[in-house]
Amino acid sequence: MRILVAQINPIVGDFEGNTRKIIQALDHARSKQADVVVFSELVLCGYPPEDLLLHAAFIDASQKYLEKIVQASSRLMVVLGLVRRNPTKKEKPVFNSAAIIQDGKLLGFEDKQLLPTYDVFDERRYFEPGTTTQIWEYKGKKIGVMICEDIWQHAGFVNDTYYAHDPVLDFQSLKPDIVLNLSSSPYQFQKPSTRVKVCAKCATTLNCPVILCCQVGANDQLVFDGYSLYVNRQGQLIQMAKGFEEDEMLIDLDVPATPCEFSYDPLQDLYHALVLGVRDYFHKQGFKKGCLGLSGGIDSALVACIAVDALGKENVLAITMPSRYSSSGSVTDSEILARNLKIELLNIPIEKPFQSLLELLQPFFQGKPPDIAEENMQARIRGMILMAISNKHGYLVMSTGNKSEMALGYCTLYGDMAGGLGVISDVNKQQVYNLTRWLNREKEIIPQSIIDKVPSAELRPNQKDTDSLPEYEIVDKVLQGYVEEYLSPEEIAQKYSIAIEMVIDLVRRIHRAEYKRRQAPPGIRVTKKAFNIGRRYPIVQEWI
Amino acid sequence: MRILVAQINPIVGDFEGNTRKIIQALDHARSKQADVVVFSELVLCGYPPEDLLLHAAFIDASQKYLEKIVQASSRLMVVLGLVRRNPTKKEKPVFNSAAIIQDGKLLGFEDKQLLPTYDVFDERRYFEPGTTTQIWEYKGKKIGVMICEDIWQHAGFVNDTYYAHDPVLDFQSLKPDIVLNLSSSPYQFQKPSTRVKVCAKCATTLNCPVILCCQVGANDQLVFDGYSLYVNRQGQLIQMAKGFEEDEMLIDLDVPATPCEFSYDPLQDLYHALVLGVRDYFHKQGFKKGCLGLSGGIDSALVACIAVDALGKENVLAITMPSRYSSSGSVTDSEILARNLKIELLNIPIEKPFQSLLELLQPFFQGKPPDIAEENMQARIRGMILMAISNKHGYLVMSTGNKSEMALGYCTLYGDMAGGLGVISDVNKQQVYNLTRWLNREKEIIPQSIIDKVPSAELRPNQKDTDSLPEYEIVDKVLQGYVEEYLSPEEIAQKYSIAIEMVIDLVRRIHRAEYKRRQAPPGIRVTKKAFNIGRRYPIVQEWI
Repeated sequence: MRILVAQINPIVGDFEGNTRKIIQALDHARSKQADVVVFSELVLCGYPPEDLLLHAAFIDASQKYLEKIVQASSRLMVVLGLVRRNPTKKEKPVFNSAAIIQDGKLLGFEDKQLLPTYDVFDERRYFEPGTTTQIWEYKGKKIGVMICEDIWQHAGFVNDTYYAHDPVLDFQSLKPDIVLNLSSSPYQFQKPSTRVKVCAKCATTLNCPVILCCQVGANDQLVFDGYSLYVNRQGQLIQMAKGFEEDEMLIDLDVPATPCEFSYDPLQDLYHALVLGVRDYFHKQGFKKGCLGLSGGIDSALVACIAVDALGKENVLAITMPSRYSSSGSVTDSEILARNLKIELLNIPIEKPFQSLLELLQPFFQGKPPDIAEENMQARIRGMILMAISNKHGYLVMSTGNKSEMALGYCTLYGDMAGGLGVISDVNKQQVYNLTRWLNREKEIIPQSIIDKVPSAELRPNQKDTDSLPEYEIVDKVLQGYVEEYLSPEEIAQKYSIAIEMVIDLVRRIHRAEYKRRQAPPGIRVTKKAFNIGRRYPIVQEWI
Repeated sequence: MRILVAQINPIVGDFEGNTRKIIQALDHARSKQADVVVFSELVLCGYPPEDLLLHAAFIDASQKYLEKIVQASSRLMVVLGLVRRNPTKKEKPVFNSAAIIQDGKLLGFEDKQLLPTYDVFDERRYFEPGTTTQIWEYKGKKIGVMICEDIWQHAGFVNDTYYAHDPVLDFQSLKPDIVLNLSSSPYQFQKPSTRVKVCAKCATTLNCPVILCCQVGANDQLVFDGYSLYVNRQGQLIQMAKGFEEDEMLIDLDVPATPCEFSYDPLQDLYHALVLGVRDYFHKQGFKKGCLGLSGGIDSALVACIAVDALGKENVLAITMPSRYSSSGSVTDSEILARNLKIELLNIPIEKPFQSLLELLQPFFQGKPPDIAEENMQARIRGMILMAISNKHGYLVMSTGNKSEMALGYCTLYGDMAGGLGVISDVNKQQVYNLTRWLNREKEIIPQSIIDKVPSAELRPNQKDTDSLPEYEIVDKVLQGYVEEYLSPEEIAQKYSIAIEMVIDLVRRIHRAEYKRRQAPPGIRVTKKAFNIGRRYPIVQEWI
């Protein structure tokens, strides 16, 4: 039996375009003498559709396009992820389902049973859990179908919840010859290798090969990394599709296969995830060109590199906006970087509007000494300039703040936080340095002077980040302990040998900055716990 | 039997402060010879705690403060809403629960069974559903305890979902003498009267009185309106606590009582909800003073009135920021309004920084004609001025956009959208007019000239909102049909007799503005479907 795994990049709600890609994959499958074609979870409507699922017309459209795909399925078994109406009156009106199609006939559905409702997932908001498990026969093979989370519980890799029910075990008595899993499993740092283990565990328990078909592409803040895979009954990895791009993987179950290794570079993957996140956010909305402010610092330098790889150098506009407090390096380093990347660089000094605003507001500042008000004004003038260029010429603004800054609110609302997309807002400062080193591994793209300089917002004379913050090494440990691991301040202090007062101060700052993050542009999620999308905290609270 | 309903206003995560209020209510209860005290849902930690529930230390704190309350409960039965750890390994580690305490002893818990996971509610993200129903006896009475949603299914008033299980029916065989329901049921327009019907239905089914204890106060975007209530076994309303403030309602079950009417003014309630939303957002964060831009239009005028009622006139600073395109009325009308409200008004014309920015950017605008870029610049200069005053003097900025503008994106990101709180961002333009008429019902607070003027952003010569938008009457109908009722464009066109092309255009605009709303300040929710908090849509999508 030959199985084609169609790893495609759907657009949410684009039934027409997604169906076109699906039918194209069916044509390819026939031309390659495949028997079965498997797609990813909710491929027909794209994942995650969010509240579009609450529109009856959206569910109707899913039904309508399913019929087109059924008609195009001759000489194939097709397993297709989609939303379908729940025919019985239950808590939720739809299922997250797989349609099972054979040779132009719709045989039925297999519904997702375990509905993740934690972190970035809200599936209980929409879906009724499935309750049945069955075998679908085709060309003498007994085929089991599962959807994403249903395979994870068995391997013990679901950290955020515990399901009493294990759908893998339901298959034991059914003795499938092969299990297909349809997934839309978002990328996070070092996650791809986990999926291999999850499939291997299922394969050894059921003593049959397992094929995982993954969504690829970014939708809003989530990046799907692809890497669809095939493990044999011993749980050995046999084949793997490409990461971060569309791919078709043809598997011949009857050919004895040699196990392969999944070796990947986690930093390269992280970089590719960010590139794909930018590219799809732009292109799926019809934007071609992006602009960003280059401060001379490491964060905006990294974002410029990502933008060039995502959009092409001719579509990236950099703007340096020096002020009275800017070091000379802020312009010259930006010029070298722009030259290395071959992107256009505009120089728009902010002194005149800054001076004009200072004079205008002077009577209302009542002789108070310069403080955060004047500092933020500079950042906001820069934000305004970026938005003006964006409005005038159709650029989408990329904001350049990193996760460590976003965590502590070391950033200006409507200033450096302005933009349509937070490119590295889920990348902490340590990872920013790591990525920069990775980028420069063969030749110097980001000037060493940018990497070496002491981090500074340059909003007052001789300012340094460490005037207001501990070293980023400490910040990032507290971030890891509090945001990713839910440790208490005492546990963090002990684990990382940091003074408890400092931990509590940083944790307080994380909570206090919630109001800023609430107005941040959507950021590309690349860790297991990103602000906003997977982390929902009250602004008004007295906890810590 | 005498029951004290303690309708208090907790702060999320403030175990210390909330416990103080709870113990104070126990003291009052004893002094009034009450036998039973009932509190609202999750009163101990405040509702909604969101992801604070994922911290083990938060659950430990709940346990610790529960013990203090148990110790303070002599001569009373106390029914207290709180989060408690789930002792068995199940999908979620905690219950949304009611602790049952009698005379210094913790008897046990009654757990919430129906967990709303739709609109603003995410309870399946956190809680394991309860499975048992029992009777608690005290002084010869059989007392049933339910939590919020558990009573709603029975009356058929849950529109967003359908529960297979009806906890009210589980009480039928147990024959309670009284049912207590602990609620944190957020206000929405015209909702308070629904709760009376919900309780009446339960009372007549079980043939016993029902007492509903509601949370009051605002937490972030949700306003809780109070209005705790008591219906007799015939389902007649006997007593009701105050709306929008803390209250203690003493009920004597043994005194024959005359039914009363719940007559309320929906517009007055809406206004009070907005006032409470502002007051608690400020005061619970320790802010005293607020500022806002007065444009001379009706939206900012309404917000100024709300701010004065919420914070006191001495704590509200208004700023008029005329430009070259402002009508003379924009300043004079603002002056009259400020005089009527007795608030300070600053006049800060934006011409100079606007001119300075125009000159700075002129080389980069490449001779293109004035457009949205120049318009947005003016709004952003105003936003920057408000934020500068806020930063310098510790004011929190209130943004003044209404729901109709937010729906269509007829607003400037980082401009008029800037601020810490969107005061009327869930109030559509028609309701803005209604509220203004209600405010002026006895004397003219908002000048008639503000009410009568044709809506305009005044960002270019002779601009009117209707240059870019249909009449707000049409906008608001489409908003109602699409956002609140999930109708298709065709259904909306038919229901409201609007041309289908116009409906589709408006629906497209609603989707296209998603990226702006994602960066809007949190807004006070007052309708059944508010943007962002209860409505989650992808930015990148191709649906409509």
